[in-house]
Amino acid sequence: MADYFERVVTDGWENVSEDAYELSSENFLGYDGPSWHISNYTLTGGKQQGVELVEIDNGCMTVLVVPTRGMGVLEAFTDEVSLGWSSPVRQVVHPSFVEAGAAGGLGWLTGFNELICRCGLSYHGAPGEDVLPGVAGMQKRVTLPLHGTIANTPAMRVAVRVQLQEPYELSVVGEVPDTRMFGPSFSMLSTISTVPGSREFAVQDVITNLGAMPTEMELLYHCNYGPPLLGEGARLLAAASFVAPRDKRAQEDMATWDTYGPPEPGFAEQCYFLRMHADDGGQTMVALADPEEETAATIRYSVEELPAFTIWRNTAADCEGYVTGLEPGTDYPNPRLFERQKGRVIELAPEATYRTRLVFGLVDSEEEVAAVRQEIAALSEGKDCVVREAPDPDYCP
Amino acid sequence: MADYFERVVTDGWENVSEDAYELSSENFLGYDGPSWHISNYTLTGGKQQGVELVEIDNGCMTVLVVPTRGMGVLEAFTDEVSLGWSSPVRQVVHPSFVEAGAAGGLGWLTGFNELICRCGLSYHGAPGEDVLPGVAGMQKRVTLPLHGTIANTPAMRVAVRVQLQEPYELSVVGEVPDTRMFGPSFSMLSTISTVPGSREFAVQDVITNLGAMPTEMELLYHCNYGPPLLGEGARLLAAASFVAPRDKRAQEDMATWDTYGPPEPGFAEQCYFLRMHADDGGQTMVALADPEEETAATIRYSVEELPAFTIWRNTAADCEGYVTGLEPGTDYPNPRLFERQKGRVIELAPEATYRTRLVFGLVDSEEEVAAVRQEIAALSEGKDCVVREAPDPDYCP
Amino acid sequence: MADYFERVVTDGWENVSEDAYELSSENFLGYDGPSWHISNYTLTGGKQQGVELVEIDNGCMTVLVVPTRGMGVLEAFTDEVSLGWSSPVRQVVHPSFVEAGAAGGLGWLTGFNELICRCGLSYHGAPGEDVLPGVAGMQKRVTLPLHGTIANTPAMRVAVRVQLQEPYELSVVGEVPDTRMFGPSFSMLSTISTVPGSREFAVQDVITNLGAMPTEMELLYHCNYGPPLLGEGARLLAAASFVAPRDKRAQEDMATWDTYGPPEPGFAEQCYFLRMHADDGGQTMVALADPEEETAATIRYSVEELPAFTIWRNTAADCEGYVTGLEPGTDYPNPRLFERQKGRVIELAPEATYRTRLVFGLVDSEEEVAAVRQEIAALSEGKDCVVREAPDPDYCP
Repeated sequence: MADYFERVVTDGWENVSEDAYELSSENFLGYDGPSWHISNYTLTGGKQQGVELVEIDNGCMTVLVVPTRGMGVLEAFTDEVSLGWSSPVRQVVHPSFVEAGAAGGLGWLTGFNELICRCGLSYHGAPGEDVLPGVAGMQKRVTLPLHGTIANTPAMRVAVRVQLQEPYELSVVGEVPDTRMFGPSFSMLSTISTVPGSREFAVQDVITNLGAMPTEMELLYHCNYGPPLLGEGARLLAAASFVAPRDKRAQEDMATWDTYGPPEPGFAEQCYFLRMHADDGGQTMVALADPEEETAATIRYSVEELPAFTIWRNTAADCEGYVTGLEPGTDYPNPRLFERQKGRVIELAPEATYRTRLVFGLVDSEEEVAAVRQEIAALSEGKDCVVREAPDPDYCP
Repeated sequence: MADYFERVVTDGWENVSEDAYELSSENFLGYDGPSWHISNYTLTGGKQQGVELVEIDNGCMTVLVVPTRGMGVLEAFTDEVSLGWSSPVRQVVHPSFVEAGAAGGLGWLTGFNELICRCGLSYHGAPGEDVLPGVAGMQKRVTLPLHGTIANTPAMRVAVRVQLQEPYELSVVGEVPDTRMFGPSFSMLSTISTVPGSREFAVQDVITNLGAMPTEMELLYHCNYGPPLLGEGARLLAAASFVAPRDKRAQEDMATWDTYGPPEPGFAEQCYFLRMHADDGGQTMVALADPEEETAATIRYSVEELPAFTIWRNTAADCEGYVTGLEPGTDYPNPRLFERQKGRVIELAPEATYRTRLVFGLVDSEEEVAAVRQEIAALSEGKDCVVREAPDPDYCP
Repeated sequence: MADYFERVVTDGWENVSEDAYELSSENFLGYDGPSWHISNYTLTGGKQQGVELVEIDNGCMTVLVVPTRGMGVLEAFTDEVSLGWSSPVRQVVHPSFVEAGAAGGLGWLTGFNELICRCGLSYHGAPGEDVLPGVAGMQKRVTLPLHGTIANTPAMRVAVRVQLQEPYELSVVGEVPDTRMFGPSFSMLSTISTVPGSREFAVQDVITNLGAMPTEMELLYHCNYGPPLLGEGARLLAAASFVAPRDKRAQEDMATWDTYGPPEPGFAEQCYFLRMHADDGGQTMVALADPEEETAATIRYSVEELPAFTIWRNTAADCEGYVTGLEPGTDYPNPRLFERQKGRVIELAPEATYRTRLVFGLVDSEEEVAAVRQEIAALSEGKDCVVREAPDPDYCP
């Protein structure tokens, strides 16, 4: 017997598409766990026209996946708490409305509103000049716009999967080819899964270099949290081994790099560059705890897969997007030219794959938050944390 | 009893969309005015794929509204006369085909063909370098492409409304959010309305700054007329208090700034910058009268809302778009940097709104044209008009 | 009786569109030639969303036409042989996903994967600075991105046609308006036709200058072949009168300009610029013969219509697009500024048309390949071929 039931909802290779597909625990006779429900549908209106969404309601938490926007996760919520944020971008913007080069390379911001938004795959970070190798053998100097292409690349094939034995995992699997003639050409196979009744979901990505030459790769998970988790006095829990402010602006509040202030209109963003301690298996955890420490969002991931971590503190007014980004990455969101000089850009061999796995959770009692705090503290027990008071030239261009 | 019947035809917030909706006076029992008919439909083919149109036929005049192109008005026509022009762009171009930065910032021209096309909201005018403030607290020097984003921003919510008592006004209401992370973020609520049997329609816009900081705003109504109104000897009727040529090219024909020549292949455009006299309530009127003064198109608007007025004279060959633009605006279509220096750029406070109302009419008898001429003349009776023979450095960069 | 049966499948002018239309020889009673079948359908998934395809199966060869991508030909195949190539771009990319200005003007490469892809109409070739005349009478210096707009311009009207007498030609006719305010504005009427049972199809284009002024035009047919025709030892058969390497890179292998090597990962492209001998009617033929000379693809065209010919040799790894481009053009794919200086840019008068006709064939026996070789040899019999060992300043910038 198969391990999984699979249903294809979109397959561009086979020219198959199914709008408004629904699947629920009731379809599986004999299953007696928490009721769950999966559906996909297409958005309409404004810049949403034609955007496909997959909604996984595991009976406790609902996860909204956006195949059209590179398998990003729009939000995840339980009856009590929503993970995500209120971006000024309230629509789920179709990539065809995004002109990456607009506004001096900041066009990406036209569609940015997800809980989890990937940046990459061939580069991420602030717009900057760089050399494109491999274009017909020529070196070409270009301005790379913000955060790369993957968030604005639609999935070509989308399937939902139901595991047929314990723990009855529910998944949506998306294949996102991000290719061009003369490369770079990648394919990302992304699996977003959750177990019925849980308050967790996993994001597992397998990125393959489709080209014939070693190819530079950068990947960052822009994981963004606003209220109710974020608020004055909210705190980042992290087993940091290293912390540096990105620039003078971040340096101003170095003393409170792991806590958050209230919404402030016109707040200029601050970024901190971190490295994390991990357990023997390379696993670490970060958490954002609300001011009362009654709720926390957690991210578990591997520092071997994602050695860099960036905090984006954007405690601007609510209407401007009061938000913090917790950003595990292969490297830091500086211009790629700088990251290359520091030896942090991955070179992926032909046909090689790069794998990542992140587990996103929500705990909502004081006891659980305390346990999270303790687990994170244990990761750095007896270990140092180097804190730079000023930008470190190895991290900050 | 409600004042209005409302029917939502598109609502992206609720993920509702209704193609091919129809509503007519026959649906309203007891109504005995002129028959009218409203319908919406989606275009197909070429660059039109997915463009939504709303057609209001008030029994005398039909107004074509394009929610997908920022609630522009494609054309308005009676059985005898059409208001609008023949652009080389014959398709109603979907914004996803418009790359604003193309052709040195002139990509906007790829879709330009409306009777009424808004330019703005954060800037309009010729491409030019400017500083974007507020992007994560940084100043960023960018090239702003032609005429801003609003004309290529689709409405998120579109409703048709029918007033249930005299004068039984018919409206289409569109909400156009034009936002991005790090702003500027505006919402425009546009109401285009007409009374059954009339040869007039009103455009009423409410623009709100959704951000938390004061934000620069520029808005210009690019109202474009070709034949049959425009022709050799057609005349602009305006209560001008000030007229200046934009540049040396416009200066060449300063003596005839308010009259039009025949179509001339390769004609290089001429622009004139005006201010208008108004009545005690701030209302003024401009009109374009055909060569025989048998027909005229009128625009009534408030000089308090729209203090600047630009004439765009583009009497090129018919196939090149023989057209004049009559352009009430908050300021002139110069690069924003220049308009800011001259103090003409609006700074809209957080949550503040900017309101405009313009009424577009058509008169088609010698008597009516004479009355229009008289009404406009009365506005400037006993008042001066300053005419600059050369570009004025306060108006022309 | 009419000469042709015509069925419109898309007509944006009339707002008519028919998805999944099918027509076959069975619809024509009394016809007793080879069975044929024509269908059109819309693609889904990834960047294909909304792309329209027309498939003509003439009973022996199937031709896939992409109206949405400027009437390009995706591929043509018989049961034994496929003409086309495996681009890293495996999707049929909708133009709304192509940002021409991306990657330093190389955004065009995001969608490039056709057997026949047109470059033009106002310019083609490598990105380069040029002056845009005619924009409101101003000269504007801009960077023209790679290969122009036509391949990313969807057809506004598409019809299929069946000739009602011998030879019962099957056609798809597409009207592709490529216009903008202030021009350049062209319309291309493209007819792609084939005779039932044949292994040939013709591409016939009529390009009209819709503007009122003489307008520069460049047009190149990027005809691309990979395996099985291309392979180590494959040979280009051409009646060349002139051959020059584009640059030092091409010069390296000047001795073998007409033969192909095996796939080499990271191979840097080589281009050769040619002129061709022709028969008294101006017709010439080029062919790509496979290493065993058992199969050949042929292109017949007029050197009066298309005087320039470019070989693009891109024998990179299979996954990088192992391919050669055989490219008849009005001129060479250099920046337009250079081609203008050399007097090779066409100036099309107002309302004037430029016509081209190319016939693409496939032969698949040693005898036929030998006959093709002989026919091409006859074209240059007793005539010289000038071969430049180094880039020629008249051809290579």
